[in-house]
Amino acid sequence: MSTWLLPENIADVLPSEARKIEELRRRLLDRFRAYGYEMVMPPMLEYLESLLTSGGSDLNLRTFKLVDQLSGRTLGLRADITPQVARIDAHLLNRQGVTRLCYAGVVLHTRPRGLHATRELIQIGAEIYGHAGLEADLEIQQLMLDALRLAGLAKVRLDLCHAGVLAALIDMEPAAATLGEALYDALAGKDVPRLVELTAHLQPAVRDALRTLPTLYGHADVLDEARARLPAAPEIARALDDLAFLAAQVEGAEVMIDLADLRGYAYHSGVMFCAYVDGVPNAVARGGRYDYVGEAYGRARAATGFSLDLREIARISPIEARSSAILAPWQHDDALRASVAALRDAGEVVIQALPGHDHAPDEFAFDRVLVEEGGAWLVRPR
Amino acid sequence: MSTWLLPENIADVLPSEARKIEELRRRLLDRFRAYGYEMVMPPMLEYLESLLTSGGSDLNLRTFKLVDQLSGRTLGLRADITPQVARIDAHLLNRQGVTRLCYAGVVLHTRPRGLHATRELIQIGAEIYGHAGLEADLEIQQLMLDALRLAGLAKVRLDLCHAGVLAALIDMEPAAATLGEALYDALAGKDVPRLVELTAHLQPAVRDALRTLPTLYGHADVLDEARARLPAAPEIARALDDLAFLAAQVEGAEVMIDLADLRGYAYHSGVMFCAYVDGVPNAVARGGRYDYVGEAYGRARAATGFSLDLREIARISPIEARSSAILAPWQHDDALRASVAALRDAGEVVIQALPGHDHAPDEFAFDRVLVEEGGAWLVRPR
Repeated sequence: MSTWLLPENIADVLPSEARKIEELRRRLLDRFRAYGYEMVMPPMLEYLESLLTSGGSDLNLRTFKLVDQLSGRTLGLRADITPQVARIDAHLLNRQGVTRLCYAGVVLHTRPRGLHATRELIQIGAEIYGHAGLEADLEIQQLMLDALRLAGLAKVRLDLCHAGVLAALIDMEPAAATLGEALYDALAGKDVPRLVELTAHLQPAVRDALRTLPTLYGHADVLDEARARLPAAPEIARALDDLAFLAAQVEGAEVMIDLADLRGYAYHSGVMFCAYVDGVPNAVARGGRYDYVGEAYGRARAATGFSLDLREIARISPIEARSSAILAPWQHDDALRASVAALRDAGEVVIQALPGHDHAPDEFAFDRVLVEEGGAWLVRPR
Repeated sequence: MSTWLLPENIADVLPSEARKIEELRRRLLDRFRAYGYEMVMPPMLEYLESLLTSGGSDLNLRTFKLVDQLSGRTLGLRADITPQVARIDAHLLNRQGVTRLCYAGVVLHTRPRGLHATRELIQIGAEIYGHAGLEADLEIQQLMLDALRLAGLAKVRLDLCHAGVLAALIDMEPAAATLGEALYDALAGKDVPRLVELTAHLQPAVRDALRTLPTLYGHADVLDEARARLPAAPEIARALDDLAFLAAQVEGAEVMIDLADLRGYAYHSGVMFCAYVDGVPNAVARGGRYDYVGEAYGRARAATGFSLDLREIARISPIEARSSAILAPWQHDDALRASVAALRDAGEVVIQALPGHDHAPDEFAFDRVLVEEGGAWLVRPR
């Protein structure tokens, strides 16, 4: 076994990619801060039960387990940061008013999401607690679009959905609840034959509504169609109104309505959304309401947020992070030393050539040199 | 069991501390970059053998183990990033010349280093490969001192040591090698009675030298004493010359020589160093040569580097990261929206008050408000 071999779907991030990730990380965190989001850093490891309070079986399967020598108990390596942040809001900060939090950190998955997907993601996101109104949903969606714009991704499509529609249908026909994840899978995959099969035994109104959901996809006018074709329950009417408000208010993206896309349903409760860009099949960012997650930590709070994988965003972002540098010699010379230090303090990259070596780092372009002329050290074009 | 309880010696980082860590992280990474260090991000998980090639039994005990479902093999959660970076240099980049790399990331330890120590550290550091000369040692030490200065830590003491002194003594008397870690522990702890006991059976020259090492501590003139009292082997003379050169060249710290402090000996091979600040008993940063680590990954390379724990540095750093903010109302008003966006683009923190809530986040001080005056939105003192 070669000691340099890494586990499957685990990889080093080399300089050019790392620099891009770092640049995007800063841009996004700075933008979160500009909206007033305070940063928190939850731990990589927690007791397994704490990590799995709200995630459903998929999160359990994706979570690495290990034993804590200090307590003898099972720990989990986090596979998602959002529930951790909800725990911090509910228990640790315990503020009464609105709390805005953000984070950036590594999460690990036991299994990759696809053949070439990584099992080590850098999840970055923002969450807002304590406000049930649509203003919070709008702010979070606008922040996500702003973040994608700063990552150089123009032409974003925002898909809106609402967990309340399906919840209302299930309330009308409890037999639908027993379908569990199969129903969500068929809806998310817009798998109509499977949906017909699954819903065959349900009462006609709910059955027809569930079979209709995958067709309710398109621009905002689809909401009128939904009002006409779905049962006239007040919860459904409210959900459709919420979506109409957001579709009209959100700026900077083409907005689509997709009433069947309920991925991440395990803890979501209201408006859900995801962002797509051209040429990338999967959503590049996603989020939504999850008003009940805090309950497991002692305090249910209105909550909505979004997150994305920085490595994926860096892969598709057009921003360029390579920078120019000054090549300086290595000599025992106090004036040289002072000159190099001053240039670095001024924000320049100055690389001292160690005796006997060529210097050609990938990340830097040496466009200037530091040379001695008439007793002074001067920066000159190379 | 409360779901909000965290494992022992594991903690959330809340906003004010997180902001400080983030600020320091950027300052340090920017400084590494200004010296020409390219960033890499090795993974959190590797096959256990890869992580433990060079660390000795202490690293093994400190490393969390878990099972990889994809391969059935044992993975380790990294407890140290330096060997990972050496692997990247040796195998992945495989450059012939000098390579400068840096990193920042979480490492986890099965056991805390002390009663109140965290098991989750944020290790940040820089490494230089491919140059065996003292210029590399000097650059790394200078970079470490520069980093501590940017963290607001003035008055740093730099302790210098050299692994070559002990290595030469062991070469002269192979029986000393069998003492293993007990010898290193007694030396590092300056435990002379234990040292007398351990070395009782060794040949007199080596025995006396080992017993002398803990007394060879002080300013650079201790090197003269060392030359007089240690055996006149060429390796020892060279090691003492190296230390004399560095003690004379390094700027910005009080330099002390400590010939017995060999902590981290497991992979170190030449000049070793650590930094102390007033009021903190343990070293706040440490580093040194480890020319043989790359061998395990297929290529031995001259190497030296340093690292520190960002959480510890943030704890003791006097820098202030709280920032001022503008409080804005929430209204359906395009002019307000444009004004808020423009302020955020200009680097301001603008927090929109969601209807019906007070807003008092810890991290921001609202010193200004955005108000409408005569049809225009204006920033005014609060």
